[in-house]
Amino acid sequence: MIATTPSVPYYAVIFTTLRTDIDQGYGDMAERMVALAAEQPGFLGIESARDGVGITVSYWQSLEAIKAWKAHAEHQIAQKTGRSDWYRQYKTRIAKVERDYGFDKDAA
Amino acid sequence: MIATTPSVPYYAVIFTTLRTDIDQGYGDMAERMVALAAEQPGFLGIESARDGVGITVSYWQSLEAIKAWKAHAEHQIAQKTGRSDWYRQYKTRIAKVERDYGFDKDAA
Repeated sequence: MIATTPSVPYYAVIFTTLRTDIDQGYGDMAERMVALAAEQPGFLGIESARDGVGITVSYWQSLEAIKAWKAHAEHQIAQKTGRSDWYRQYKTRIAKVERDYGFDKDAA
Repeated sequence: MIATTPSVPYYAVIFTTLRTDIDQGYGDMAERMVALAAEQPGFLGIESARDGVGITVSYWQSLEAIKAWKAHAEHQIAQKTGRSDWYRQYKTRIAKVERDYGFDKDAA
């Protein structure tokens, strides 16, 4: 559930959202987009949580991979429906991960 | 609830966590750390959600501001207790936000 990512540098897309009350199709779309993203070249991993605000962070090898995923036909439809139906507000931030470190109690 | 951040570039700290079953002191600490972070020089905003995995993204003006916050005495104690008590696993990623864009239905 915490993404296993390679050595830096790599890229993160931080997608923060507030939902509308419209649920129709949302769950299926969200699940499908995670599965579809995972099939794309350059995909490294994804982390997602929602309580009130939703935060999904996907990790990618390059800016080119992120650009290609944004332009993917089925993803484009999801983005459009997101704006018309599911999201009241969102922000997408594209960031270069320059440093990372972690902790694992089982390994500590 | 979606952070209002300035024009790029700025920095993001993506803190992804899995909790232990130990709740003692966790809620107070989490609330206190958000309030304390917001008082630090260079702090720009914070977004947080948990369901299973927890994701907290804080935004900062510079790497120096992030470094100073990491070294803050009270934050150091929280980090130490995090490893001993509250977190089973975590990953911290420091990233430079190079591009961002958003959508607001009320403004659309």
